[in-house]
Amino acid sequence: MSATIIDGKAFAADIREKISDHVTRLREENGIIPGLAVVLVGEDPASEVYVAAKHKQTTEVGMRSFKHALPADTSEADLFALIDKLNADPEVHGILCQFPVPDHLDERAIVARIDPSKDVDGLSVVNAGLLASGEKGLVSCTPLGCLMLLRDRIPNLSGLDAVVIGRSNLFGKPMAQLLLRENCTVTIAHSRTKDLAETVRRADIVVAAVGRAEMVKADWVKSGATVIDVGITRIPHPDKPGKTKLLGDVAFDEVSEVAGAITPVPGGVGPMTIACLLANTLTACCRAHDLDEPEGLTV
Amino acid sequence: MSATIIDGKAFAADIREKISDHVTRLREENGIIPGLAVVLVGEDPASEVYVAAKHKQTTEVGMRSFKHALPADTSEADLFALIDKLNADPEVHGILCQFPVPDHLDERAIVARIDPSKDVDGLSVVNAGLLASGEKGLVSCTPLGCLMLLRDRIPNLSGLDAVVIGRSNLFGKPMAQLLLRENCTVTIAHSRTKDLAETVRRADIVVAAVGRAEMVKADWVKSGATVIDVGITRIPHPDKPGKTKLLGDVAFDEVSEVAGAITPVPGGVGPMTIACLLANTLTACCRAHDLDEPEGLTV
Repeated sequence: MSATIIDGKAFAADIREKISDHVTRLREENGIIPGLAVVLVGEDPASEVYVAAKHKQTTEVGMRSFKHALPADTSEADLFALIDKLNADPEVHGILCQFPVPDHLDERAIVARIDPSKDVDGLSVVNAGLLASGEKGLVSCTPLGCLMLLRDRIPNLSGLDAVVIGRSNLFGKPMAQLLLRENCTVTIAHSRTKDLAETVRRADIVVAAVGRAEMVKADWVKSGATVIDVGITRIPHPDKPGKTKLLGDVAFDEVSEVAGAITPVPGGVGPMTIACLLANTLTACCRAHDLDEPEGLTV
Repeated sequence: MSATIIDGKAFAADIREKISDHVTRLREENGIIPGLAVVLVGEDPASEVYVAAKHKQTTEVGMRSFKHALPADTSEADLFALIDKLNADPEVHGILCQFPVPDHLDERAIVARIDPSKDVDGLSVVNAGLLASGEKGLVSCTPLGCLMLLRDRIPNLSGLDAVVIGRSNLFGKPMAQLLLRENCTVTIAHSRTKDLAETVRRADIVVAAVGRAEMVKADWVKSGATVIDVGITRIPHPDKPGKTKLLGDVAFDEVSEVAGAITPVPGGVGPMTIACLLANTLTACCRAHDLDEPEGLTV
């Protein structure tokens, strides 16, 4: 058996097209343009690349993109003053601060300062609480993207056994909440789990997010299971000296012989994250204007 | 094999004694008396009984108890004015509104109005978010009580397989978060779970909270497992006409032949709930005064 390869790149492109259509309608019918503000403190090269990618995709779907680049020695007070201004700005529907920030700044305090209804990264305590309480909020982009891929593959997730490996606030915990909301029986496994292979083997859905290259082997996976690989580890390329290669948490070649469907790394979950950031910005914009939420792009 | 019966009544009495000692020290060393305000709207007889029990136990441990009884037709505005006053009152460290409230009032809005640092029932979105984020907050009393019983029975919960049956905001979800925090591998099962018996059979720790009398049978339980029964169903007494009897979610007689330890109904989890309400009030008081938190009474 050879698994269906879930093409996250193509799926993310579809999502962006849906968003783009919705943005066009919003502009034409309501005179509203969704806007995303990205705050970057300092000059971390990787962060610059991410921020540029977000800017490009935001404008491509017809939204406004506001980039605020601040020097590395920006004080908390100055950063908070900017966030307060963005919180109050009716043209800004989503705000994110690109992490990591310089050491003198506190990431949790920054997230807490962003209006929860504009917290399109879904990182705030309030949004975690709304998700945990089954209420409407904004959901962290990567788990939201994984849920979209799963829903596309399996229209009815109810009653399926799902195992989430990893329990971070950013991914594992919200992913478990989302699967629970879809009526899966959810197990959260992690580094202290006694028999991880056995636990994973029971699952119809495996979501791996631990950051250990190729940890999940073929004999850990039930035949026909759907495997979502969130891990990304960069290693020196085995054949191209000086180059690197990305590996997921799942031993792709062998697991794809057993699984029913699997996401590759790269090209699986990765492209979904920015697409979901745009989806969240659109959702936040629609809520701010008391308009219907975009269908299929939120929970 | 015959299970150890976990005596929740005796354990709750120990907890109250610990709290009482701490309250005495607070009064003598810091001149501080913790205070709990209970708001009751209308005249539901069961609520009157609960409120009276809370008042009695609060004063018995040396705390101040403030009871506010409002008529059934109290407006939301008047109720909120009272909550705002209690939020601002430095003698009040914990606030709870006894549910259910009359239909014209919205329970979620009431909970949201209480200052999260005084929300000793741990019901607010903010406290759910703090728990989900692994940060300090106030935890819903019944799951906190179950965790105390489990910690007492099993000092190191790390790596154990725990199954929580039921996924309510009030109990199942916070219970799962607490067990995850103790490094258990946590499965959340519920009405849509495909094979509940098989799922439960894998667990070292079973926490049942669905409200279906004697649903969990002996052949669902792994030999030696610890079983916490949160369900309460009242049935006509089989032997005493006109009387009633309480049953848990676990078929106690047969499961106690298999389990390593089990809580009875009544006298298991039940008595822990008010004890944990007092523990939360003490915790909130210590935090309000920047004092050390009471050991073993919080997470």
